[in-house]
Amino acid sequence: MKVYGTSVSGNCYKIKLLLHVLKIPYEWIETDTRKGETKTQEFLLKNPVGKVPLLELESGEFLSESNAILYFLAKNTDFFPDDLLAQSRILQWMFFEQYSHEPYIAVNRWLIHFQNKKDDPRIPSNHTKGLDALKIMNDHLAKNQFFGSENLSIADIALFAYTHVAEEGQFPLSDFSNLSSWIRRVKEIPDFIPIY
Amino acid sequence: MKVYGTSVSGNCYKIKLLLHVLKIPYEWIETDTRKGETKTQEFLLKNPVGKVPLLELESGEFLSESNAILYFLAKNTDFFPDDLLAQSRILQWMFFEQYSHEPYIAVNRWLIHFQNKKDDPRIPSNHTKGLDALKIMNDHLAKNQFFGSENLSIADIALFAYTHVAEEGQFPLSDFSNLSSWIRRVKEIPDFIPIY
Repeated sequence: MKVYGTSVSGNCYKIKLLLHVLKIPYEWIETDTRKGETKTQEFLLKNPVGKVPLLELESGEFLSESNAILYFLAKNTDFFPDDLLAQSRILQWMFFEQYSHEPYIAVNRWLIHFQNKKDDPRIPSNHTKGLDALKIMNDHLAKNQFFGSENLSIADIALFAYTHVAEEGQFPLSDFSNLSSWIRRVKEIPDFIPIY
Repeated sequence: MKVYGTSVSGNCYKIKLLLHVLKIPYEWIETDTRKGETKTQEFLLKNPVGKVPLLELESGEFLSESNAILYFLAKNTDFFPDDLLAQSRILQWMFFEQYSHEPYIAVNRWLIHFQNKKDDPRIPSNHTKGLDALKIMNDHLAKNQFFGSENLSIADIALFAYTHVAEEGQFPLSDFSNLSSWIRRVKEIPDFIPIY
């Protein structure tokens, strides 16, 4: 299978990380959002939403949305257990990630670290909401080793992607000790690959 | 089971609609975000994210995030077919709904129709991005009857919730003829219940 992705993007890194730990061979096609490569006519035929990551199957079919791709790859593996309530909790955290975490933490990382737009008016409000998300995660980890399930799952991979580089968006991870321990646990997955 | 929800919220309506068409009995506990009822200490113990809908199971366990609740209720029914790629496409559209649709269409409906904040500075940008989402949906429906699968699924229920009331956020549905036809098809589900 082929993956179209921007290497520095957390959403794209999720897919690369899961493919590595599952030892699934793939071809990475670097497609840089910063150069407008997801908005070309050619790319929009593959994904009308104009975003990466995008998975291309051997059949020529496409699948988009990072967390839907994680589901596709992880089903019937240890990263998505059989129990319905555990599965639903994993999805709960993955929807939390896309709605209450990524829009603030990833966007501030993007503005501050990659675009050098440190005066962007969205940053203060994103910072407050991103801290809220990190606090919810940190509180959850006071009583749990992982998100969604007793063992590491695709919920952890989804949340890890932007959380572990949140300091690039000026979020102080050192204030959240449970998060720091969890980040270390995720990095211990066999065949873990770093974002950079 | 119990559902905590704000009746006029599309995210909460998703759950009510699916419970009705699946003929699952439930108790609805009206919990109004507009009155701060999702931010009380008592509610935050149930859902630390402070949002509805929230599902309470007979076991006393809670499940949040509207689209994760849809998955929990729909798995092993016709609304979530067995085929892995179809399942993944259903989730793809549900993540699209939460990331590229709801933050613009639901928010403008909220500001304009419920809060009477017609001068809110977010509205013009939300309008543009909401139209982008509606166009992507309308284009998809030029060649498909439903989203995610050949038959109606929880992807349709998730997208229907805010799309069919998008005019309350001043999105012109009459410009999107495929969407209007699809809205009629969704309303034909046996045991369909309207939002109001």
